[in-house]
This record gives sequence, C-alpha cells and structure tokens, in this order.
Amino acid sequence: MTRIGILGYGNLGRGVEFAVRQNADMELVAVYTRRDPASVAITTEGVPVKPATDLDAGTEAIDVLIIAGGSATDLPVLTPTYAKLYNVVDSFDTHANIPTHFENVDTAAHEGGKVALISCGWDPGLFSLNRLYANCMLPEGADYTFWGKGISQGHSDAIRRIEGVADAKQYTIPVQAALDAVRSGSNPELTTREKHTRECWVVLEDGADAAAVEKQIVEMPNYFADYDTVVNFISQEELDRDHAGLPHGGFVLRTGTSAAGTPMKIEYSLELGSNPEFTSSVLVAYARAIARLAAEGQCGCKTVFDIAPAYLASQDGAFLRAHML
Amino acid sequence: MTRIGILGYGNLGRGVEFAVRQNADMELVAVYTRRDPASVAITTEGVPVKPATDLDAGTEAIDVLIIAGGSATDLPVLTPTYAKLYNVVDSFDTHANIPTHFENVDTAAHEGGKVALISCGWDPGLFSLNRLYANCMLPEGADYTFWGKGISQGHSDAIRRIEGVADAKQYTIPVQAALDAVRSGSNPELTTREKHTRECWVVLEDGADAAAVEKQIVEMPNYFADYDTVVNFISQEELDRDHAGLPHGGFVLRTGTSAAGTPMKIEYSLELGSNPEFTSSVLVAYARAIARLAAEGQCGCKTVFDIAPAYLASQDGAFLRAHML
Repeated sequence: MTRIGILGYGNLGRGVEFAVRQNADMELVAVYTRRDPASVAITTEGVPVKPATDLDAGTEAIDVLIIAGGSATDLPVLTPTYAKLYNVVDSFDTHANIPTHFENVDTAAHEGGKVALISCGWDPGLFSLNRLYANCMLPEGADYTFWGKGISQGHSDAIRRIEGVADAKQYTIPVQAALDAVRSGSNPELTTREKHTRECWVVLEDGADAAAVEKQIVEMPNYFADYDTVVNFISQEELDRDHAGLPHGGFVLRTGTSAAGTPMKIEYSLELGSNPEFTSSVLVAYARAIARLAAEGQCGCKTVFDIAPAYLASQDGAFLRAHML
Repeated sequence: MTRIGILGYGNLGRGVEFAVRQNADMELVAVYTRRDPASVAITTEGVPVKPATDLDAGTEAIDVLIIAGGSATDLPVLTPTYAKLYNVVDSFDTHANIPTHFENVDTAAHEGGKVALISCGWDPGLFSLNRLYANCMLPEGADYTFWGKGISQGHSDAIRRIEGVADAKQYTIPVQAALDAVRSGSNPELTTREKHTRECWVVLEDGADAAAVEKQIVEMPNYFADYDTVVNFISQEELDRDHAGLPHGGFVLRTGTSAAGTPMKIEYSLELGSNPEFTSSVLVAYARAIARLAAEGQCGCKTVFDIAPAYLASQDGAFLRAHML
C-alpha cells in the first residue's frame, strides 16, 4: 500500500481524498491543514485531520505528501519546504514560473534525499505530455492548445473583486471556427481573440450599476480586454442552480507533415465534469509513480516528462503488455 | 548524432529513411536488405545499401537498428536475432503474441547487453500509451478503440487472394453512431458490427464473376463476415488514381467517473495521410530514446510503457520544462 498524506483541504485536497478510494493499492493516512483541524470535516472515516506543523519533524508515516495548494503563494513556499522531508507531488500551474519552481524544489529534494513531482495535473500535465509526444512524432508542424468549455477560477475571482459584484463565474470557451481551421490542417495563425471567448455570469450587489460593472469586466487588461466577452447578469439563486460545478477541459492539437510532405494530425481532448476531481486523480496516479521512484532510491525534482508511463499503473509490466499494449 | 541502420526497405523502411531527415540529431548510416543490394534504390545520397549478412558480426557502426519487417514471419525471427548484436526497435503489431515476442527479445537483448524496443508505432504504440494513461487517471470507466478511416493492408491482401481479383484496397471505417454513443458517456457495449464498417474497392480480372467475388468477400470469416461490408468494383486506373495512398488513423476513448460520480471523458485521435510514414516517425523518436537508455548502460526489452517521455525529445529537460510543460 502506498500511504498518502494530503496537505490542504479545499476542492483539490477533497478531490485527492476521493481519488485515493478508486485505487485499491493506495491508502489515505492523514489530512494536514494550516487551519484549525477541528474546523475541517473530511469524509473518510478513521482518517485523522492534523495540524500542518505535525509534518515539520519529517516523521509522519506517509510515502507521498500531495500538496493541494494554490500556485500564486502557497506552492512556491510549501513544496520546497516539504520536499526536504517527504516525497511530494504538487500541481503548480503558473507556466512562466515552472523553471524557477523546479530549481527550488530540486535543490530541496536533493538535500533531503526525496523525490518530488511538480506541475502535475492536466495542464500542465496530460496536455504537456501530449504536446511533447506530438512534437517528437511530428517534428515539422504547429501546436495548438484550446481550453474549455470550462470555469476559469482566476477569471471568476477577478470579476468578484470588482466593486458591486456579489458573485460570479466565468467560462472559457474555444471558438469552434478556430478549432475547425486547425483541424483542417491549414496551420492558421490565431490571435487570442480568435481562439477563445469568455462568458461571464455575474450577481450584482443591491444597487450596483450593471453597465459600469460590465465595462470594468470587458476592459480588464490581461483577463478580458483581448477577448470577446459576454456578460450576463443573474440572481444568486440562478448562479447557484445553474453554475455550481467546476467543469473544464480542452484540446491539444498538432498538425504537420512527414518528410515526404504527407499531412498528419494528432488531437487530444478532455471533457471533465470537475476540474479539481480530475486533477486530483492525476495527482494520485503520479503519487504511485513517485513512491516507486523513491523505493528505487532516486531523488530530486521530476515532471511528468520524466516518468515512464508504466510507473503510473497499479498492474505489472506483464499485465500491461498483455492487456493494454 | 544517433546513428541509425534500417533493416528492410519496404514502405516502412522508406518511411524511416524519410523520418530521419526531420531529426537533426540523427543520421542514417546504412540500409540493410535481404534482397540483392544492387536492386534496392534508396533516396538518400551517400548512404550505402548493404546485404543483411553484414550485420551478423555485430560490428556495424550503428547505435540503433530499426527493423522494418512484417509481424507475421519477419519480426519474430529478426528481432531476437539482432537484439543480441545491436540496440533494436521494431513495430511488432500482432497484439496476441506480444508477450511471447517480448520474452524472446528480452532474453536476446540481455544476452547481448543491448536495449530493444518492441511494438512501437501508433497501435500498438501511441494508442497503447493513451489507453494506459487514461486507465490510470480514470480507474473506473470503459475503453474504446476505433480504427480508420484507413486502409487495412491485411484485409486488402485477403481480397487480393480471391480468385478473379486483380487488385483491391479495403478501408476500415468507424461507425459514426457508435463514436457518438461512446462520446455521450453512456458506456455502450458495442458489437464488432456496430463499431466498424468495411469498404472494398476491387479490380476484377477479365471474365471474373463479380457476384461470386462479392459473396466470397462479405462471407469471409474473421475478415468480413462479422462486419457490414460494401464492395465496389472499379478499374485498375480508378484504383490507382483514387486509392493509391495508405491513410489511416483512429480514436482511443475512455469515459468514466470520479469517486464522487462526476463524468469525465478522454479522447485521443490520429488522422494520418500515410500510415507507414507516421509509424516510421514514431520508430525514429523511440530510436533516440533507446540510444540514450543504452548509453546509460541499460539492457533488455522495453515497450513504450517503459520509456519516460523526455527520452524521446531532442531538447534537454530545461527546454522541455520551459516550453512544453
């Protein structure tokens, strides 16, 4: 049994708790929290919720610690801290800062003789794998990644920070015409606006100015200004009823040609009823791999690129060759 | 530079020759043939065509030998033979016999201290990888593989063996209704007939009985009897004009649910203008990985499941993390 600890119990931590149940060779040992443990109610019977400080001595009986925190401020601190003490997995997803995060975690993991995996999930994660495989198989071609239809938590948060907004959800939606153009093999150059639209569902506070809120949303730099954005105002009841989930997904495509000039197309897509639940499931599969690498005596920081696929599976090589190859 | 040798110069061997050109860190050193080398005209200037017997001493200056032979009779003999002498890659694709082939090649490769990769390509190969990844991420779900639209060489050959048939091509075509049912997430149980149809383009010999040929095709056990099969009779000119290519492709889908019951869908698809050219491209990328594993001192037989994705890329880890993760 691979013994899993979870640090952090938001959507992602809870997703990991559930994902462990689908893997008979894995066992949830404890949930660690920086909140008051008495305030955190988990759903797995017999598993303790402990203060995060219990991890500090490096003596908790876990094989892998899955760090379920945010990329902005949590993971840059937490992952290097705990990579000295435990084998760890995180879902750090600020693409531009991955090289720095990797270096910090690699140094820590080597110091502690532990194995760490960063930037695991679906993007970065499974989408990255598909970009890599497709680039190796079609060295001459063009890459496209589309996200959605799905909830962008960062964009939803940005809307909620506007004065007069009580609540909001934002969907990122790929533009069908752009997807069609890519699939046609024409290798189009697409602007930000041509690839995705943004659909906002906004609950106003009493007396707020809808026109002013809409203007602030659609003109917000980085988040919305470069997109065609649709803003819908609804009641809190409607938002809770119709937009409570966290679906997401997307498409990774590569189109290219062989050296003989023959066209080829590779497409990968995910349609996820719950972004955090699926991300958690990926984290758990990679936790199995990390436990195995650690048992082999490896150490240092890894990414999904460094993990042979067989390490993810509960079955042995002979089974995989007979049934999945 | 990774020095590549090719054994066999049919569609696949020629595809490898072309694919090497798209990889600046790889070099084609020689093509080996069991035919008279003087009868084999390759397209790369300055590369010799040599008799296969030149390989027998194990002294050819190559890092990886790509064995471009058929799975029925060639590879079961050739791959174990040469895995004792060279690092080798093959595309053995008789799924049911993979475990036996693996054992034979593994024994040979260990004997010679070499690394071998078997069953590389897209199915087995990239499709297998996608089945494995999807099963690890969605442990509770159902797998579906569809092939086509594409030319099945085995089925085309079977038609050509019928008396009165001068030439033929057979397309395997996924049934759209079946694909749609799978994509809906209903986890349908599909019969052979419900998943694929078979479309045949047949050139008759002078005086042949079309009705008798058609009956023999559609009733042929294993190949056609379990499918809805359409037979079209055309002239040799039309066949050569409209059906000269070897396109193929297909779909790997897994639908399932999280432990919380939330639906998820993973889909991978390939649309290949040329089956042998794409397969070759996969073989060449994996040849790079095998050369690296050999340089690390590994030996024995591997499959795509055993190869960390980073080994396939010409770029280093820092580049991959910065640009593809």
